[in-house]
Amino acid sequence: MPSYKAPLRDMRFVLHEYLDLPGEAAKLGLTDATADLIDAVLEEGAKLAEEVLQPINLPGDRQGCRLENGVVTTPDGFKEAYKTYTEGGWGGLASDPAYGGQGLPRTLATAFGEMSSAANMAFSMYPGLSHGAYAAISLHGTDEQKRLVLPKLVQGVWTGTMNLTEPHCGTDLGLIKTRAEPQSDGTYAITGTKIFISAGEHDLAPNIVHLVLARIKGSPEGVKGISLFMVPKFLIKPDGALGARNGVSCGSIEHKMGIHANSTCVLNYDGAIGTLVGEADKGLRAMFTMMNEARLGVAMQGLAQAEIAYQNAAAYARDRRQGRALTGPKEKDKPADAIIHHPDVRRMLMNARAFAEGGRALLYWTALRADQLAASKDAAAREMAEDLMGILTPVLKAYLTDMGFQSTVACQQIYGGHGYIAENGMEQFVRDARIAMIYEGANGVQALDLVGRKLAANGGRALLATFAQIDKLLKDTAGNASLKPWTDGLAGARKDLEEATQWLMANGMSNPDNAAAVSNDYLYLMALTMLAATWTGLVATAQAKLAKGADDALFYENKIKTGRYFLTNILPATGLHVARLKAGSEPLLAVPAESF
Amino acid sequence: MPSYKAPLRDMRFVLHEYLDLPGEAAKLGLTDATADLIDAVLEEGAKLAEEVLQPINLPGDRQGCRLENGVVTTPDGFKEAYKTYTEGGWGGLASDPAYGGQGLPRTLATAFGEMSSAANMAFSMYPGLSHGAYAAISLHGTDEQKRLVLPKLVQGVWTGTMNLTEPHCGTDLGLIKTRAEPQSDGTYAITGTKIFISAGEHDLAPNIVHLVLARIKGSPEGVKGISLFMVPKFLIKPDGALGARNGVSCGSIEHKMGIHANSTCVLNYDGAIGTLVGEADKGLRAMFTMMNEARLGVAMQGLAQAEIAYQNAAAYARDRRQGRALTGPKEKDKPADAIIHHPDVRRMLMNARAFAEGGRALLYWTALRADQLAASKDAAAREMAEDLMGILTPVLKAYLTDMGFQSTVACQQIYGGHGYIAENGMEQFVRDARIAMIYEGANGVQALDLVGRKLAANGGRALLATFAQIDKLLKDTAGNASLKPWTDGLAGARKDLEEATQWLMANGMSNPDNAAAVSNDYLYLMALTMLAATWTGLVATAQAKLAKGADDALFYENKIKTGRYFLTNILPATGLHVARLKAGSEPLLAVPAESF
Repeated sequence: MPSYKAPLRDMRFVLHEYLDLPGEAAKLGLTDATADLIDAVLEEGAKLAEEVLQPINLPGDRQGCRLENGVVTTPDGFKEAYKTYTEGGWGGLASDPAYGGQGLPRTLATAFGEMSSAANMAFSMYPGLSHGAYAAISLHGTDEQKRLVLPKLVQGVWTGTMNLTEPHCGTDLGLIKTRAEPQSDGTYAITGTKIFISAGEHDLAPNIVHLVLARIKGSPEGVKGISLFMVPKFLIKPDGALGARNGVSCGSIEHKMGIHANSTCVLNYDGAIGTLVGEADKGLRAMFTMMNEARLGVAMQGLAQAEIAYQNAAAYARDRRQGRALTGPKEKDKPADAIIHHPDVRRMLMNARAFAEGGRALLYWTALRADQLAASKDAAAREMAEDLMGILTPVLKAYLTDMGFQSTVACQQIYGGHGYIAENGMEQFVRDARIAMIYEGANGVQALDLVGRKLAANGGRALLATFAQIDKLLKDTAGNASLKPWTDGLAGARKDLEEATQWLMANGMSNPDNAAAVSNDYLYLMALTMLAATWTGLVATAQAKLAKGADDALFYENKIKTGRYFLTNILPATGLHVARLKAGSEPLLAVPAESF
Repeated sequence: MPSYKAPLRDMRFVLHEYLDLPGEAAKLGLTDATADLIDAVLEEGAKLAEEVLQPINLPGDRQGCRLENGVVTTPDGFKEAYKTYTEGGWGGLASDPAYGGQGLPRTLATAFGEMSSAANMAFSMYPGLSHGAYAAISLHGTDEQKRLVLPKLVQGVWTGTMNLTEPHCGTDLGLIKTRAEPQSDGTYAITGTKIFISAGEHDLAPNIVHLVLARIKGSPEGVKGISLFMVPKFLIKPDGALGARNGVSCGSIEHKMGIHANSTCVLNYDGAIGTLVGEADKGLRAMFTMMNEARLGVAMQGLAQAEIAYQNAAAYARDRRQGRALTGPKEKDKPADAIIHHPDVRRMLMNARAFAEGGRALLYWTALRADQLAASKDAAAREMAEDLMGILTPVLKAYLTDMGFQSTVACQQIYGGHGYIAENGMEQFVRDARIAMIYEGANGVQALDLVGRKLAANGGRALLATFAQIDKLLKDTAGNASLKPWTDGLAGARKDLEEATQWLMANGMSNPDNAAAVSNDYLYLMALTMLAATWTGLVATAQAKLAKGADDALFYENKIKTGRYFLTNILPATGLHVARLKAGSEPLLAVPAESF
């Protein structure tokens, strides 16, 4: 059985020492987020993840969800765990106090989300989807919708869903067929079939608030005729009590590669009563509020699965004895040495470790931009935060889920044959992590979003802000000799990114196929460059602590060593991405479509 | 439901046009292997794979194996399929006619193996394991063992297994605890527990011949005291009839990530009667005969899963319509264009295609070395074949299974959310392909075998032979202007490989941790260089055919285009491998073992 220990020391390092979250939160008026409170939340969150959520992760995978007569039963223990979760107020950590939330920074909620998702990804998706619904309604909903629904979502009394995909359309939402017929009372009757609806039906809460994309009768074809509707499983009376069952039902649940304990539903809408969220025909915009929220959440899932896989692989490598270290026995009294002494095992562990530590810091840094965007009084700061988030959301969604998956595979490999056996749990991390590369916009779509949309928006303002961020860091650290390997690495990556950007401007505008063909390499270049900046900051923080004679010297020394591994063994990939990028679209498209 | 169509055109290209298998086979005295016969075997093998094996692949995964009272039941249809398989003589394609085999080239059997494994990996492992047992007994067994067992294995009347792993030891076989007590009649009583025994118990054949590593009472500790035994499930009477049930039983079958339809058993030996295979205490040598055989077979599994995943992803990409091509609608009469027109989808398909085509050619080329080793009358040619195989066996085992797995993941990605759903079959390819990176020596162990054993053996003779092979190709093609991009690519990769080899000699001998730390990068460099050589040969072959005005111009043009994709988008990784390699072991080992 695998185990999980929340990486609290590293989380505190990132939140307090690297980001100064208490200071930043105070600047944003989030004065509740003191250092003590942040630590208390981390400690309590860790207990929940370790003691309540993780123990039901592997059994939940084995048991899965069950559909009988339209009713979905979640695995044993999920109902109790959900009760504990909601009673602890975990669902509303960063939500508006006006609706019962705790108003804490998103950055802190992201750290808690990482723990929860590492401990039990399938479970965490139930409250996770509620966050997306909360975001869409709070930004686009009517006062009445907010009044009736938001407190329930914040407290976790009800849950939410996102209904986009239909059998014939996923990425291309312009093809949506689900239709909405206006009723005389201002509501709409929704009819159609939605698929892949995570947490679409379950037994954790008495009501589910579905947010559904549909086309109002008479609206234009394509994406310009799509509206967003709120369709509760049970109708909601004006006093908030539950009314009649609405015309939405679960037709089947999918048999999937992983996240077995999360019910992925086919939902059939048969004249279900819904109310419009936001403006008619502007549903995609409202839906993208949820999507962006969700995309950073999915990036976090990639990181989280890498972390728990790393922890278990490290423990196994310390414990499993096979062969002798090549430089002579390390444990002479034992029949063999622990496999952690084998350099190739160490290589796999270091890859996962460098990924998890760097990825965590960059993700939390990005989450802090979300706090700034939401709460800063300074318009320029809000714009900067929005620009950086715009760039980093697709980058993190794709890179952290790709590398998160690869990390779970490498950590499974450390177990040898035992990693392939279900009871040891490593293969579940691989199967669960796999979906994160696909949903909320497949990673190829993220790369297109970055290259086709985010770079060009507002005359390239966001990209300039990103470069400015890097240049400021390079300037601020210019005199620091001990930091030179990292600043050199960052400057090299920045140069590669600039070269790639110039290539893209010269070749991608005239031929969009060029931009699309290299989008994946460009996204990786951006991710590696931002990670180089992140590691520069992490190492500078650690060096400063050591210089002050910190108690916890080993932690900081290891941080610097892990940062060096990033420099020597991960960052050099930027050159490969530039080389591939410069090949353009021609080699990819040369074989005719009919010949595949 | 996925489908499979054996890639016969490409197989014929490799076997006839690139390798000239009929000509090479004739030189080795394998005169039965005419061009016509080779084609007939391919055609019939394709039918078996497509019509018999593939249809029970996905259902077999869903149903899995069942253990009741020590008896394992394979999924529906497996017994019938196995009967068809053995009646067709497929198990003995390359086996000795003296035992009922057909004596055809291993190269051809490898092509058939690819089809069979692509269509149904779990099924193909049942006869696959018999090959390993056949190889070990035919090389090391007594005349009596050969007489009693080999015809049965060749005809598939019985199957075979390999019993190495125990709960506490896999890679480190020196720790084996299973013991063999000599009996007065010359047999041994075997007692111990073996785990992860593929096809260890099943209902396909009335008897199973287990080859078991155990330590004879009084033998030395460690690897020098291990012997190999033949332990049949039912004792075999001198006339070949089945006798009493032997003292071996299946304690449980593993619940695994994939290959559900192959029974992976815990086998308990309780005084089971076995006979020695080869010399006492020299069991590892005999077992390595099976392992090397098996390792090329596992490499083939990686290739095979990539091929079937590619085929289905390509079909889906041609069929699934989402969005419009970026350069304007391609299918104006349809509501959207097929996703094959999206460059990022094409990138994933081209990666898988270039891998499958290049990997196939290199694997078959290596299998031809096995034929030369087995049948050449020329001692120098045998030595050269053995040297090249020695280098390429670990390289192909690791690289083809790593990249095979990655290809299945990328092809699953093309399906979007539908790739995560079990019924579509793509996720099974990922789960099945995953084991090939682990078993028969985890890929990290392959890299150590290459760097620690194969390079140094016989004063580096095999490595010199490998370089000589490349240099001869470069010399032979020096005047060919149309081939220049490929010969330049090959020369560049060769230079990187040489630089890495020199680094290894300068740094790996003095510090074995350096050699181990970079072994994975070195293996990838070797794989990419050998693939560059392979593509140079494939493209030269295609160009020559086009120059002669071949009917099938599109096939050859696409081959050249795919070869160019290899040059621009895959081969440039050699530079990254050299850069990482030169970092040596220090960054990997800097964080102390206790800090993981």
